[in-house]
Amino acid sequence: MSATPAYDALKLHRLRIYNLEHLQAIASWDRYTNMPSGGARARAAAQGELAALLQRMASEPELETLLAVAEEEALDQVAATDLSLMMHERRRAKAVPDALARRRSELAGASLQAWGEAKADNDWSRFAPLLAPLVDCIAEIGDRIGDALGISRYDALLDGFDRGLRADRVRALFGDVAGWLPAMIRQATERQAGEPVIDLVGPFDPARQRALCADVMAMLGFDFAKGRLDTSAHPFTGGTPEDVRLTTRYRDDEILPALLGIVHETGHGRYQAGLPRDRLGQLVGEPCSAAMHEAQALSFERQIAPTRAFVEKLSPMLAQAFGDQPGFAPDNLRRLMTRVRPGMIRVEADELTYAAHVMLRVDIEAELFEGAIGVEDIPARWDAAMQALLGVDTRGDFARGPLQDIHWAQGMFGYFPAYLLGAMAAAQLVDAFRRTRPDQDPMREPRDLDGLPDWLAEHVWSKGAIGTTEQLIAEASGGALSADALQAHLTRRYLP
Amino acid sequence: MSATPAYDALKLHRLRIYNLEHLQAIASWDRYTNMPSGGARARAAAQGELAALLQRMASEPELETLLAVAEEEALDQVAATDLSLMMHERRRAKAVPDALARRRSELAGASLQAWGEAKADNDWSRFAPLLAPLVDCIAEIGDRIGDALGISRYDALLDGFDRGLRADRVRALFGDVAGWLPAMIRQATERQAGEPVIDLVGPFDPARQRALCADVMAMLGFDFAKGRLDTSAHPFTGGTPEDVRLTTRYRDDEILPALLGIVHETGHGRYQAGLPRDRLGQLVGEPCSAAMHEAQALSFERQIAPTRAFVEKLSPMLAQAFGDQPGFAPDNLRRLMTRVRPGMIRVEADELTYAAHVMLRVDIEAELFEGAIGVEDIPARWDAAMQALLGVDTRGDFARGPLQDIHWAQGMFGYFPAYLLGAMAAAQLVDAFRRTRPDQDPMREPRDLDGLPDWLAEHVWSKGAIGTTEQLIAEASGGALSADALQAHLTRRYLP
Repeated sequence: MSATPAYDALKLHRLRIYNLEHLQAIASWDRYTNMPSGGARARAAAQGELAALLQRMASEPELETLLAVAEEEALDQVAATDLSLMMHERRRAKAVPDALARRRSELAGASLQAWGEAKADNDWSRFAPLLAPLVDCIAEIGDRIGDALGISRYDALLDGFDRGLRADRVRALFGDVAGWLPAMIRQATERQAGEPVIDLVGPFDPARQRALCADVMAMLGFDFAKGRLDTSAHPFTGGTPEDVRLTTRYRDDEILPALLGIVHETGHGRYQAGLPRDRLGQLVGEPCSAAMHEAQALSFERQIAPTRAFVEKLSPMLAQAFGDQPGFAPDNLRRLMTRVRPGMIRVEADELTYAAHVMLRVDIEAELFEGAIGVEDIPARWDAAMQALLGVDTRGDFARGPLQDIHWAQGMFGYFPAYLLGAMAAAQLVDAFRRTRPDQDPMREPRDLDGLPDWLAEHVWSKGAIGTTEQLIAEASGGALSADALQAHLTRRYLP
Repeated sequence: MSATPAYDALKLHRLRIYNLEHLQAIASWDRYTNMPSGGARARAAAQGELAALLQRMASEPELETLLAVAEEEALDQVAATDLSLMMHERRRAKAVPDALARRRSELAGASLQAWGEAKADNDWSRFAPLLAPLVDCIAEIGDRIGDALGISRYDALLDGFDRGLRADRVRALFGDVAGWLPAMIRQATERQAGEPVIDLVGPFDPARQRALCADVMAMLGFDFAKGRLDTSAHPFTGGTPEDVRLTTRYRDDEILPALLGIVHETGHGRYQAGLPRDRLGQLVGEPCSAAMHEAQALSFERQIAPTRAFVEKLSPMLAQAFGDQPGFAPDNLRRLMTRVRPGMIRVEADELTYAAHVMLRVDIEAELFEGAIGVEDIPARWDAAMQALLGVDTRGDFARGPLQDIHWAQGMFGYFPAYLLGAMAAAQLVDAFRRTRPDQDPMREPRDLDGLPDWLAEHVWSKGAIGTTEQLIAEASGGALSADALQAHLTRRYLP
């Protein structure tokens, strides 16, 4: 007889949810990689059914009693953390009545569909009337969760992606970046203007790109006995920790987007695969936060990919796949990967301007949920910020402006901070890793590709959700999360 | 307010099960087509979780009350049939205690694993000790269901795949075939000995085979907006009626196995896609029976594929895909598709000897469950039957003997009759179709490929489970299910 029967029952309940979420994950992956168009309606019904069932399981009334009893049980530290995660999740879930959750889901469905059409037609006015009620609904959800947790509405949304994250903290960290980023973008652009860069010349056969991407994944430690690479319209990491499904897309005329996309997803994928195996099925075995997930992806994409160690391996692989060309020289690949070019599209942005794209989105969504602006104000607010931060004129181009991302359309408010917090965390983790390697070369770049992933596995992946983003970063790096390492990294790379 | 609230509630409950079964179907398909080996354990846990949940849903106590109330409601004929199917299913489910169902599932898992190893090592003695307890468990299940329905143990198993099918009926129909089949095999073999046949010469590039298979599927009316073609170790039809997933496998040195495999699966697939759309999610909207499913597949594989209309279209397609060769001549393709050659393997057997393979399996499993023989007697019984029916010596070759099929290993007893009943039904349906087409050529073969599928869609697919196999066959053909049409078809084709 266990000494912690209530906690054990909760753990088992959680494992059942984990098992069912596996099927949801595979169905979602299939939806984007394989499903024929005619299967969409039935799939939506099926996944909606399971989502509703999971929602009911998460709000079973007996859980309340079990949680109360488990709190009195003698739990070890991992179990105690696990229990506190369950209680936190429970408080959040309980604050949202079923009808409100259903309403969110319906409004998000309608908004998402309108977004697809509005984006295709560059027509903001078709999207706004569907987005507005979704924002209202999510504001209500934020209010209710905020009341339950004693935090503000937008804080409640942030907390859903990164437990304990608050808007004030985001503002302070982002404010720091805003202080030095615009000048850095300007200077880097000027400096790069005089630098010779050779463009890569296509066409690049998609089948060969795919084979190359798989080789790069393997080189970065991706285990194909526990995962796959497939093609989808937008790259993503799906599947489960035991069966990681990465996707990317291929264009005939370019190779770097698919390649860097897959390096990015490999970071996500290795995090997922590196979660503590003996805690899978527990909340404490899940990824720590959205920001930490992005930090792993960015560690791979922005920190590993442009290193000498990586491009020197990549260069001959490219030459073998597509025939040699001057652009494949290692130094040129580095330059291509770090070219700073202000543009309209976030997902195509370089490392420096990317931060600006994120900051403007976070500003807008924070203002939206703090009531400072309404949905109708988004385009003007967008245009002004793009002009101020990047000197880019986006007026009238909604499709490549506020309609470019899917996040808001599906009601995903509070996620965007993760992209820049992730960049900070990545820089800080990599900096901490390097300090453990005094043998590195003057450029302070690792000579092998395994070092950083091995270190991340130990200090981040295997930790799961045992701590918050800030806690894990502090433990791994010895200091509080800040923008310092990011600034140092960017200065070293762009303004050496 | 509906006049049939209880039935409506039952229908909704069933729809929820249907939606969740969709996820199970996609996960199963993925398991055989995509899943990396390392994902197997987590997938088994996930699918086991959902299976248990579906089992619980099917046995919710409130259903009992709803069924009783619904019986008194004023239902139209379709709803009344639907309700009777639910009651029948409920009676079967209720007869099997949870613990027994779990035990079956565990024993089947162990048996399946032992079967894989035993087959690889040609070692019957490794499999038998795991099969025996599974047979005992299924015998108990059969007894309990049989008691509930007032039928015998083996009848109860048959009824699970074909409602109302009884062993006596199978015996009578199969006995008829046994009367003329051995002589027909002998005569056909002798006659074909003098017939010139040109073997096809490989290699056949798998990618081109795949493209050709997809073209053939499209030619046979498969809708790729509502389904896919993929590769797996064993061909199967999976997915859902809205999203039909066919698979086959390719060998470098042969083209006909993959091609005829895909014609067969296209029959299954079109049945699935042709089920009544407005009844999907109801039992009355499901396929009528395993036998009827096989009948559709065999209508395509054995009735359509060797027709002139088909081979005349296929011949130039083959020539274009692989370069022309003498074997691709239409008449030669027909001969290749109808070559009679007694052999050891059921799934490689021609149309004539296939029936013998099925009959011997049905005899053995019936004797097993009627207590006439034990698991240990299977090999000797197998050898004797193969010798008697086909003149093939299988002694000592367990892997290509009683270990060749997966059915028994996974506890699927009572399914085998479907293969031969399906062949009878296919011949009878095709015969009925031809009688509606007095304009056909002297060989009584259709000139176009759409006629038969269109007719089957109307007379079988769109009927779902509104009637039993025997009822649908009687309605569609005007006569009781019998072996007559099969005998006439085989005589016409093999002994003209």
